[in-house]
Amino acid sequence: MSRALSTPLAVSLGDPAGVGPEVIAKCWDNRDGFALPPFVAIGDPRSVAAVWDGPIELVDDPRQADAAFDFGLPLIQLNAPRPDMPGHPSVAGAHTSLDSLEIAVGLARSGSAAAVVTGPVAKEQLYAIGFQHPGQTEFVAERCGVAPGNVVMMLAGPTLRTVPVTTHLPLDEVAARLTSALIESRGRAALRGLQRNFGIAEPRLAISGLNPHAGEGGQLGREEIEIIEPAIAALAAEGWRVTGPHPADTMFHARARAMYDAALCMYHDQALIPIKALHFEDAVNVTLGLPIVRTAPDHGTAFDIAGTGKANPSSLVAALKLAARLAAADENKLRTAAAARA
Amino acid sequence: MSRALSTPLAVSLGDPAGVGPEVIAKCWDNRDGFALPPFVAIGDPRSVAAVWDGPIELVDDPRQADAAFDFGLPLIQLNAPRPDMPGHPSVAGAHTSLDSLEIAVGLARSGSAAAVVTGPVAKEQLYAIGFQHPGQTEFVAERCGVAPGNVVMMLAGPTLRTVPVTTHLPLDEVAARLTSALIESRGRAALRGLQRNFGIAEPRLAISGLNPHAGEGGQLGREEIEIIEPAIAALAAEGWRVTGPHPADTMFHARARAMYDAALCMYHDQALIPIKALHFEDAVNVTLGLPIVRTAPDHGTAFDIAGTGKANPSSLVAALKLAARLAAADENKLRTAAAARA
Repeated sequence: MSRALSTPLAVSLGDPAGVGPEVIAKCWDNRDGFALPPFVAIGDPRSVAAVWDGPIELVDDPRQADAAFDFGLPLIQLNAPRPDMPGHPSVAGAHTSLDSLEIAVGLARSGSAAAVVTGPVAKEQLYAIGFQHPGQTEFVAERCGVAPGNVVMMLAGPTLRTVPVTTHLPLDEVAARLTSALIESRGRAALRGLQRNFGIAEPRLAISGLNPHAGEGGQLGREEIEIIEPAIAALAAEGWRVTGPHPADTMFHARARAMYDAALCMYHDQALIPIKALHFEDAVNVTLGLPIVRTAPDHGTAFDIAGTGKANPSSLVAALKLAARLAAADENKLRTAAAARA
Repeated sequence: MSRALSTPLAVSLGDPAGVGPEVIAKCWDNRDGFALPPFVAIGDPRSVAAVWDGPIELVDDPRQADAAFDFGLPLIQLNAPRPDMPGHPSVAGAHTSLDSLEIAVGLARSGSAAAVVTGPVAKEQLYAIGFQHPGQTEFVAERCGVAPGNVVMMLAGPTLRTVPVTTHLPLDEVAARLTSALIESRGRAALRGLQRNFGIAEPRLAISGLNPHAGEGGQLGREEIEIIEPAIAALAAEGWRVTGPHPADTMFHARARAMYDAALCMYHDQALIPIKALHFEDAVNVTLGLPIVRTAPDHGTAFDIAGTGKANPSSLVAALKLAARLAAADENKLRTAAAARA
């Protein structure tokens, strides 16, 4: 296993009644086979013990996780009023998942953890306890002091990375929400993220059209001409390597994918259909534009299979490995910068 | 090569200035390697000779094609006023491509050809000569006496088949055009086509949602509840095996694809993105609901590479092979029916 990072990854367990506790336990079980870096979970140990009989090593500080990692799953304990049953989410569990997220982000912000990997939460439960954000991403952005508009969600798989411009909107509202300014800011955040987090000096961004055949010269919609092309021109004028608008259906085959480092897509399913068709098991959700590294597995709480032992840890494995890679790149950059100053 | 069919496939060359002539010639060149059944092209031999120096066997009747096939590319000659240059479409070429299509359909209707495989046309050129249909599919439907609403386009690849409910519409107009009746009629045509053409006795149809997460219980759009679910219930009440509405992003990974024979999708890119991401080289466009078998390669005229020798014949190869398979199934059914009557 890799010990390249100076601090462990902080993993929020997500909803204690979901599959989060099970998949993190499976990751620890197979830490050598998966070549995983040390990590520390944050949550209620009873939610892990409910689905796994392996050893749990309670720690107070992530700095203890490295030594503990060989003996058990390092875990910073949260004191929930009562444990949740797998598959039966509760308001108490929502509080635990939010506390876990908040602590994980704080550890990464302070430098005690190298990066944050967030387990799946149940938004309905969070809304019930007064959570005001559309999702974990916006919460993390706020805790990092970054405006939500300046962070973007990237779905990253082995042969494709996609970034949606709009996300959880009814399809009927997508066209009305698209603006050149939004496409530009999402595109810029994606390009900077490719540089900073992925170490790509001159990233290439392929930008999709909205309509079939990218509007076919205006015959199948005018958003390409009026909104998307001006945004592409503006990004190009800043010196970025951008192309498009591309017909979305011919952007994602192997030869097309080789032409860009990420695809900027206009709506949720345009970005999510190809990544999940090609990389369902190992796609990772990465938040770009934050001062910390944050990844997440690309699946939900899966309450229907929680507690049955069926949850597949491969997306969390990919999220842990990518977080470690991105954090190591950040650490190296800091070391290089420090050396340059010395 | 297969000689299982009693008559050859009829292939319209499509626009003579596009890649149609080149890819059909490449198919004949590699007829043994690709194990292709006999076919007869219909078009201007000069458009083939402009991009290929192999032998052309002019025939008057498809019945001569079987014998001619070993010696050259069998071709029913159309007398265009002048040959088109590759990459330079013209009004004359549009007339030739329309004549070619009409003759190919007539041959299949009369039983002289086993099936029709249509080469790519340029819609703008066709519109310029007064073509009134949205595409070749609707033209073929009319020539077969079938209302356009009763035929559906299926994209068929080795591990996925998709059928769009709406096709060439601006994204912004999709939601307004969706009705339960339209979903039902497209679904029924898809299911009957899977039975008749693909020989699947009890076909399973997975029906997508329109919105992200299939609307998430109405929070991200209500079309699933108000339009799609009633259509699914109506099809199920007729005894069809239908499921959904499924979130579109989790419908197309390998395990999900194994659960259905075709996916019914709400709009163009929802159906086309996954099929082209997974099967860009060998997806075939199949028209279901016709009294004849019609397939087409899943690419356009590609005027930009016409005449350069770069055109890839693999989609036409797949279209020819699938047409032969579907036509053979039809012939077998007719033979079985005749035997039962005797």
